[in-house]
Amino acid sequence: MAYSISNSSFLLSRPSPCHKPSLSATSHSFLSLHSASTARQFSSHSAGRIRRGGVCAAVAIEKEVPENERPETFLRSADPAAVSTSVRARFEKMIRDVQDEVCAALEAADGTGKFKEDVWSRPGGGGGISRVLQDGTVFEKAGVNVSVVYGTMPPEAYRAAKGNTGADNEGAKAGPVPFFAAGISSVLHPKNPFAPTLHFNYRYFETDAPKDAPGAPRQWWFGGGTDLTPSYIIEEDVKHFHSIQKKACDKFDPTFYPRFKKWCDDYFYIKHRGERRGLGGIFFDDMNDYDQEMLLGFATECAKSVVPAYIPIIEKRKDTPFTEEHKAWQQLRRGRYVEFNLVYDRGTTFGLKTGGRIESILVSLPLTARWQYDHQPEVGSEEWKLLDACINPKEWL
Amino acid sequence: MAYSISNSSFLLSRPSPCHKPSLSATSHSFLSLHSASTARQFSSHSAGRIRRGGVCAAVAIEKEVPENERPETFLRSADPAAVSTSVRARFEKMIRDVQDEVCAALEAADGTGKFKEDVWSRPGGGGGISRVLQDGTVFEKAGVNVSVVYGTMPPEAYRAAKGNTGADNEGAKAGPVPFFAAGISSVLHPKNPFAPTLHFNYRYFETDAPKDAPGAPRQWWFGGGTDLTPSYIIEEDVKHFHSIQKKACDKFDPTFYPRFKKWCDDYFYIKHRGERRGLGGIFFDDMNDYDQEMLLGFATECAKSVVPAYIPIIEKRKDTPFTEEHKAWQQLRRGRYVEFNLVYDRGTTFGLKTGGRIESILVSLPLTARWQYDHQPEVGSEEWKLLDACINPKEWL
Repeated sequence: MAYSISNSSFLLSRPSPCHKPSLSATSHSFLSLHSASTARQFSSHSAGRIRRGGVCAAVAIEKEVPENERPETFLRSADPAAVSTSVRARFEKMIRDVQDEVCAALEAADGTGKFKEDVWSRPGGGGGISRVLQDGTVFEKAGVNVSVVYGTMPPEAYRAAKGNTGADNEGAKAGPVPFFAAGISSVLHPKNPFAPTLHFNYRYFETDAPKDAPGAPRQWWFGGGTDLTPSYIIEEDVKHFHSIQKKACDKFDPTFYPRFKKWCDDYFYIKHRGERRGLGGIFFDDMNDYDQEMLLGFATECAKSVVPAYIPIIEKRKDTPFTEEHKAWQQLRRGRYVEFNLVYDRGTTFGLKTGGRIESILVSLPLTARWQYDHQPEVGSEEWKLLDACINPKEWL
Repeated sequence: MAYSISNSSFLLSRPSPCHKPSLSATSHSFLSLHSASTARQFSSHSAGRIRRGGVCAAVAIEKEVPENERPETFLRSADPAAVSTSVRARFEKMIRDVQDEVCAALEAADGTGKFKEDVWSRPGGGGGISRVLQDGTVFEKAGVNVSVVYGTMPPEAYRAAKGNTGADNEGAKAGPVPFFAAGISSVLHPKNPFAPTLHFNYRYFETDAPKDAPGAPRQWWFGGGTDLTPSYIIEEDVKHFHSIQKKACDKFDPTFYPRFKKWCDDYFYIKHRGERRGLGGIFFDDMNDYDQEMLLGFATECAKSVVPAYIPIIEKRKDTPFTEEHKAWQQLRRGRYVEFNLVYDRGTTFGLKTGGRIESILVSLPLTARWQYDHQPEVGSEEWKLLDACINPKEWL
């Protein structure tokens, strides 16, 4: 058993309008895998801001501070886990290495686009590095963010984050839960309709021992996944992508790929459409029922597989000739991406409710999207084949 | 006091995957202000379809049937209120007249675009007329729909529709609630960035006397509103629009315009942005604390004001020259429209949860929309002025 952690793509901690300065962190910083330092030009109107769920009333947040330089580590210097051999420290190093690798590979593939970076920290410890490449030659919008967050989670926020509506009372019994969370999160939207969108997110979570019970057991778990969202099925690409996921999984456990492939199909389900957002990949959460070193190794393997899984596809498809019709279909599929993220994604919906920094939460949305009334692709067409595979998930290997 | 009814824009009744044929209608047909008869090409995957809220498990729906002709009335022939003098009958006639008037005016303004019509009915009574104009000369997407629905609302669905999370138990005490609902609902998205989007929706709701207590009192109420969403403030247009709303209100009660203008600003609030979707108009709900004839007259006046409030603005702005930058800003504002409708609009979110026909629910979305990372209009620019007015609602008159 483990606490559930959301598939937060781009949550960020920002002062919410129902700020309670007495608390040192927030429920949404728990999910926070991103932040950025840009000040909002317009102050928010706070009247009636958080009406739903009442979560915000129970949470608060320490304001992040923009930094000019990336620090060596975002771990608190007083954190006993700040030693470089700890899982916290090694996970942070891993996600920062992967951020560098992925951004370098994306810039190389794009040719002209460059990432804009925002570094931020919190006075009490923790922080993050946000990178966004917008309107490049190959990429329409690409965000790659890491964050390291220390927080205390009130039981209400804990339950909301869990998506728990009452059946399970463990959060309520536990009281405020101090936690540590680190993650990398990314969505990459290329321009060419034959080049697929990619999403990946890997995260590590620990609850601290409560201060009044220093010997109490800690919880820890890993979550994450990588999934592909093409507008057209190029079977060779989808097979390549899934085979890299399977290879990463198989190094650790032969049951991982089939389990996590199905979990991915189930998670990225747009219920009101009866369709998945894309052609899947792997997704896992609450993983603590294996050796911790093994799972750290597994998350590392998966994150390091992003470049070999994705870049060869981009290189092959970035210059494929396309028509206006291809582009319009890609835009319709982007509309589905928007629907999934705004309506279902637990991280996004939780972030919107709790007043996270909206630009960071929604950087996962495509630059452009389209909704056409009652669009029905012709049976047997390439568009129909994609839709069919989103409705009836296939085994690609 | 009255039951609350959602500002459903385009909800439709369709068999949901958790269909229970023993019930004759559904909670979302309660909100249904639109339907269409086009069959879906792909059958929905039902596994795990309705996970959230558990509403679907409690509701069911009678399948609608496509019709070749518009019937004289959608009222049940056995309905004692089917006489032409009843409020039900007069409200139906009014919304159908307004649908004809608005569609004719829009086609005339567009010049080339024509509405596509779907007529549908339910075997047990009720039905609707859906009209969509897509990719015209002036309009990108325009939907104008009427529906007349008979249903029984289970208490759970009643509470979900009300947005009630538990404080109020009247629904639970009441048991299944038989109801009648009729409405007109419309969203009009023009192409030109200087021509504003318009939304309007007027609805009438009655609960039947329960069968086991035929003398029991009925509840009835009216709801509705008309609101304007420009991308640029052309003050003369916004003043014209609001003055027509005020004129309609003032004919009935001098308190209506200020009350309903504020209600509109409060309802169309995108909490996570701290912005309204647009520049407002009027919005009211649960209205039964005036004479019924007076409120029928008021709803009629408002609905009949749509053409004089909107068409002169379209005529003036449909050919205004614009740049790519103007268009991009319109697209960003359309993104906000999508965010409001998918995240906050009670009718839309309820329809998505309960398995309504998605194309009908989402015809309110613009054809195209855009999300640009951290876009900040220059202080003092025309874009900034619009955003400022969405953040700080103004008095236009």
